[in-house]
Amino acid sequence: MHIDLNSDMGESFGAYTIGADEEILRWVTSANVACGWHGGDPQVMRQTVGRAKVLSVAVGAHPSYPDLLGFGRRAMHLTRGEARDYMLYQVGALRAFVEAAGLALQHVKPHGAIYNVAVKDRELSLGIAEGVKDAGGDLILVGLPDSEIVKAGQEMGLRVAREAFGDRAYNEDGTLVSRKIAGSLITDPDVVAERVFGLTRGTVSAITGKEIRLTADTICLHGDTPGAGAIARRVRERLETAGIQVRPMGEFLRRAV
Amino acid sequence: MHIDLNSDMGESFGAYTIGADEEILRWVTSANVACGWHGGDPQVMRQTVGRAKVLSVAVGAHPSYPDLLGFGRRAMHLTRGEARDYMLYQVGALRAFVEAAGLALQHVKPHGAIYNVAVKDRELSLGIAEGVKDAGGDLILVGLPDSEIVKAGQEMGLRVAREAFGDRAYNEDGTLVSRKIAGSLITDPDVVAERVFGLTRGTVSAITGKEIRLTADTICLHGDTPGAGAIARRVRERLETAGIQVRPMGEFLRRAV
Amino acid sequence: MHIDLNSDMGESFGAYTIGADEEILRWVTSANVACGWHGGDPQVMRQTVGRAKVLSVAVGAHPSYPDLLGFGRRAMHLTRGEARDYMLYQVGALRAFVEAAGLALQHVKPHGAIYNVAVKDRELSLGIAEGVKDAGGDLILVGLPDSEIVKAGQEMGLRVAREAFGDRAYNEDGTLVSRKIAGSLITDPDVVAERVFGLTRGTVSAITGKEIRLTADTICLHGDTPGAGAIARRVRERLETAGIQVRPMGEFLRRAV
Amino acid sequence: MHIDLNSDMGESFGAYTIGADEEILRWVTSANVACGWHGGDPQVMRQTVGRAKVLSVAVGAHPSYPDLLGFGRRAMHLTRGEARDYMLYQVGALRAFVEAAGLALQHVKPHGAIYNVAVKDRELSLGIAEGVKDAGGDLILVGLPDSEIVKAGQEMGLRVAREAFGDRAYNEDGTLVSRKIAGSLITDPDVVAERVFGLTRGTVSAITGKEIRLTADTICLHGDTPGAGAIARRVRERLETAGIQVRPMGEFLRRAV
Repeated sequence: MHIDLNSDMGESFGAYTIGADEEILRWVTSANVACGWHGGDPQVMRQTVGRAKVLSVAVGAHPSYPDLLGFGRRAMHLTRGEARDYMLYQVGALRAFVEAAGLALQHVKPHGAIYNVAVKDRELSLGIAEGVKDAGGDLILVGLPDSEIVKAGQEMGLRVAREAFGDRAYNEDGTLVSRKIAGSLITDPDVVAERVFGLTRGTVSAITGKEIRLTADTICLHGDTPGAGAIARRVRERLETAGIQVRPMGEFLRRAV
Repeated sequence: MHIDLNSDMGESFGAYTIGADEEILRWVTSANVACGWHGGDPQVMRQTVGRAKVLSVAVGAHPSYPDLLGFGRRAMHLTRGEARDYMLYQVGALRAFVEAAGLALQHVKPHGAIYNVAVKDRELSLGIAEGVKDAGGDLILVGLPDSEIVKAGQEMGLRVAREAFGDRAYNEDGTLVSRKIAGSLITDPDVVAERVFGLTRGTVSAITGKEIRLTADTICLHGDTPGAGAIARRVRERLETAGIQVRPMGEFLRRAV
Repeated sequence: MHIDLNSDMGESFGAYTIGADEEILRWVTSANVACGWHGGDPQVMRQTVGRAKVLSVAVGAHPSYPDLLGFGRRAMHLTRGEARDYMLYQVGALRAFVEAAGLALQHVKPHGAIYNVAVKDRELSLGIAEGVKDAGGDLILVGLPDSEIVKAGQEMGLRVAREAFGDRAYNEDGTLVSRKIAGSLITDPDVVAERVFGLTRGTVSAITGKEIRLTADTICLHGDTPGAGAIARRVRERLETAGIQVRPMGEFLRRAV
Repeated sequence: MHIDLNSDMGESFGAYTIGADEEILRWVTSANVACGWHGGDPQVMRQTVGRAKVLSVAVGAHPSYPDLLGFGRRAMHLTRGEARDYMLYQVGALRAFVEAAGLALQHVKPHGAIYNVAVKDRELSLGIAEGVKDAGGDLILVGLPDSEIVKAGQEMGLRVAREAFGDRAYNEDGTLVSRKIAGSLITDPDVVAERVFGLTRGTVSAITGKEIRLTADTICLHGDTPGAGAIARRVRERLETAGIQVRPMGEFLRRAV
């Protein structure tokens, strides 16, 4: 049994600091590093990659819509070609820092609104997958299970990682409960840890109480949840106590999941 | 005898078109492609690299200050670390498109104000050279002969290319005559072609009329000069008629010029 | 009988030039001046306002989504509050140049995608109208007849101007034929002039050939249509020959259309 | 006796929060509100103006170089015309929010590097002063005593306010000790309060210990100093205990200081 824990990182920008990178980085195995379009800047990218290296955390790109003002959280319409080229640009930029640190880029996880819109948008998903494909290097594309983005990645022969969330409530159909609904965010470390453990078994209880099946290769831990560091630690400890190997996704994912 | 001809390319942005890329690209051997910070965007980068590939023109990065509004033509103060990381970011972004096209990135030529400021600014030049060094891949750094940037590159073991201008007047000390001075820009194709030919012999006549020595590995042809395409063609023909090999700088430059 | 002719202006940015401002400005009575978010910059804004003043063309703001890379032509999701504040920011910035030139700002016409999305999006339209309301000064809000944006403006007690297009084909329901469909753009100056004349009578023939009713206060002439200057001239001459007064909308529009 | 206390405000941007606005706003009489070019965005501008209104704090514009990535803290070269138009744009944008709140804009204080460069740069200072002049409304221009910017403002007939710093060490010539030098920043609330009191008498002790003369109309309190709120409170209390009227500069400044 193995699982990857990932978290978004390096979203500070210029004079602005955001997130709890230091606290989270100790407990995860993959870092999704912002590429300057919704957060992050070249100096933050270098620092974040450097810290990840020290802690042996694998590094992926976290590309976004071009929307610094909206932190990449607003849907916008891109053509397939725009999506492809915007991804490739950001992945290339981050990879330069990763390789300068003597590492190899592991994965690409789109950020915020482009991640969410791609779940159901085939054209956008194809564009994203083409950008990752163009980047080469056997990069892993991260997305929701059964999403258009995961399908697009598989069609193009990319390695894909299915992502689940320990701190978010699920509907019975396996989609995430909207953040606007009470109870959508789970902040009790023990509850989150138990849910993550369940996810490694392929199940999670929906917000209705019904147990649903959900297969995940990597679990996202949010750095902006209150008490994010404590939650991350509890999750990691719960998994290791149970004898589950917590490792970077690149170590256990094979082609054509 | 050999020489490289280079030109700035791919500086269009979104809905905006600039330059005479198509006309120039046929006659040069190296293209300096904008990386999105003063001009260029991911789609323009892809297109420009694709056109260069078709015409067997070698591709380099043309990184800039972060100043789209000023087209990278305004001096601004960067720390050495900022310069290093800004270069690495832009080089990485462009390289992703170059490698997606099946090519290898050949060189880095800083754009506009950062190129000019670096001529005499050692700290800035060290930062730029470190960024190019970090990018790896035996990239060539392009700068003015005897400039701080060429020195910095050499100190770090980078290949460097010394650049001269066929359409710009020179002072007796080998520096460029300011664009604000009448006669600083030469637009007669025959005159430019003759000057470029002279440069391959290591000499050029200064604005005072005195013949000066100037050693160049690559000659810049400006795409924004009136009649740029015609000038480029005349230069290329003049050189080939004289039996000089016009080839990408990467084919003849060795380490430690 | 009176009508206003408007055109988008001042969309150049930094080193980039776009549009046919000089040719168009002679024939229109209202200029929609870009505010820096999709095009335009402070120096272009000053110049454009100055030229409009010389030719006695009334000036309005042409605010946009924050999307310079996409020239404001891509739909993106904004909250009502974001729309309101983005409009107010841009209107305020442009008004400073208008007032510095000794003029008064006449109107606000949203640009590109935000104009189009607002046609059917009530929340967005309310945000836009609130921004214009907040700007004060009895500004006129320009939108398609029967659009949500016109309704929102009327509900808030703004003056509104209903806009029609002489160079665009219409569906029978009065909506514009998509630009992707052949025949959607009309470029024959005589045809455009005749259609604009018809619009002053309240009718236009739809792409099906059927005559439909359409009431407009202002007619948009596109600066990016091939032969834009010639078309604009022909339209102006056609109207004046017919004895129709071509005047800035602010001179004849009253509150609560 | 009267004095104004000012502080920089509203520099948060999108998802990013910076500064201690709430703590400081209670104790100052003038707020310098960022205009979106180094920090601030339309929604932050509205909120900041609204909070200032509730606490009866006068509002000014805090315009910057176009450098969000560098938080406006990096010198860059602008022409006089660029400086003028960049100021006018930002002042106009902020003023729209101020007037929408039913207030009048009081002053303009350039931010960061442009403020510092302007101290000795006459061309830049003339451009800034022209922008403020163009904005009209009898705006007050804030700068260092004896700086080029204050001179430029006076030459153009603007009201000017001379600014001093309670938490910064001075050289004997009245210039500020560089932040890079130990002791340049004073953080003891009692010491700062005492220095501010002294400044209302026209004197301050230089870093050498020598008492120097310095006339100020407004004292800047930094929101990013550790313990900024406590310092601001102590300063305000010290002044009021001494019977000095702490009032917005607009209430006591006359033309031609």
